[in-house]
Amino acid sequence: MRAGVYDSGIGGLTVVKSLIEQKLFDEIIYFGDTARVPYGVKDKNTIIRYSLEALEFFKNFDIDIMIAACNSVSAYAIDELKANAPFKVSGVIEPGVMALKNKIPNLDANILVLGTTATIRSGKYERLLKQNGYKNINSLSPSLFVPVVEEGLFEGVVLETVARHYFEGIDEPDVIILGCTHFPLIKDEISKFFPSSLLIHSGEAVVEFLQKEFLLNQTFKQTSLKLFASENPDKLKKIASVWL
Amino acid sequence: MRAGVYDSGIGGLTVVKSLIEQKLFDEIIYFGDTARVPYGVKDKNTIIRYSLEALEFFKNFDIDIMIAACNSVSAYAIDELKANAPFKVSGVIEPGVMALKNKIPNLDANILVLGTTATIRSGKYERLLKQNGYKNINSLSPSLFVPVVEEGLFEGVVLETVARHYFEGIDEPDVIILGCTHFPLIKDEISKFFPSSLLIHSGEAVVEFLQKEFLLNQTFKQTSLKLFASENPDKLKKIASVWL
Repeated sequence: MRAGVYDSGIGGLTVVKSLIEQKLFDEIIYFGDTARVPYGVKDKNTIIRYSLEALEFFKNFDIDIMIAACNSVSAYAIDELKANAPFKVSGVIEPGVMALKNKIPNLDANILVLGTTATIRSGKYERLLKQNGYKNINSLSPSLFVPVVEEGLFEGVVLETVARHYFEGIDEPDVIILGCTHFPLIKDEISKFFPSSLLIHSGEAVVEFLQKEFLLNQTFKQTSLKLFASENPDKLKKIASVWL
Repeated sequence: MRAGVYDSGIGGLTVVKSLIEQKLFDEIIYFGDTARVPYGVKDKNTIIRYSLEALEFFKNFDIDIMIAACNSVSAYAIDELKANAPFKVSGVIEPGVMALKNKIPNLDANILVLGTTATIRSGKYERLLKQNGYKNINSLSPSLFVPVVEEGLFEGVVLETVARHYFEGIDEPDVIILGCTHFPLIKDEISKFFPSSLLIHSGEAVVEFLQKEFLLNQTFKQTSLKLFASENPDKLKKIASVWL
């Protein structure tokens, strides 16, 4: 079973980590569009165009499923990907909402969605949560989290000050959707501000979703990983060897 | 006299501001590659490819000079632009060094170059400064300054914390080159840490350079400005109307 995992950069590796841990695939082809990262500040048409280029890339491999491990892609381009792909396609937004539904059946729960500007502007999490009956939804776009993570500042005074800038004055929600694949890397800092909130992590959510929706219940002894990047693949490999 | 001003995003507007103030042109065509910003983290070949695409764009206009108002482009692609352009081309690095030379003739002066990762990695400022006889050169890449500026945080605790993260423990230099067109927007914060340092600003440096090297000494009653962006031109227009 072979998966193609697509992200704007390195954040999707947090999803790869969950896929490897759960042994769902014997091979993962990862493509990070590092030459054009970040997607989170780009507009809809640009994101669709880049996503369809990534789709063409994956057609070179005999993959069974393409996973858009990027919330901005999942927010804007998932329908276009599904319409044009000769293989199965999964994003991360629907899995995230499904995971929340399994864990928090109370429809009055206070939900905070954290995402990039593009993801939040799309309103896709909000719509899907409302369709599932949830009523109390807030969303927030802490735009500096991605560059802070890309700078390698997973803890310390810079991250803390940036987090306070966005979180100060916000009531603690029951559940927080980490609606950007970079955010699991700073979940400890997020939990400092909201210690009682349950965090929904795209990687774990995708694993559950693939098992339930696509019936991927076979497991493999090990997963080989092939990394591709539109620029600086060595940086991607270095980070992957640290994270995974 | 018509100029084409090229930047990866909105930062080049700080150069446009100086050009308008000095009335060097009666028309400026601005192109911001906002769909692919930021360039400062990209590699050499990507920056050259994008720059040559911008050159093709400017061929549609009858411009007299193209100004690469982006240090990352000036660091990596200026020779390719000059080799392929049917009009004059200026970057911002050579003008910056010339401006420094005019203001600080003392070759023992301590110089600090601030720039994006790409600009600093290129070593272009250092080489040019050494060729001009300067000996004491340090460089620093405060990568979070660009996203902080793009987030509109021109002052306050986030900017201050980020600045302290990069500047703490650094001796005050005699002169600081603001080697990224975003940095003039936070020069007050930079001066808080280094109150006695002279700051070199690309916009002012380019004006002097064009007057001296290209003998642009005519002035015009007013400058009309046409803005183009590879995505979200409305955002660019909004920011331009505030800054200019």
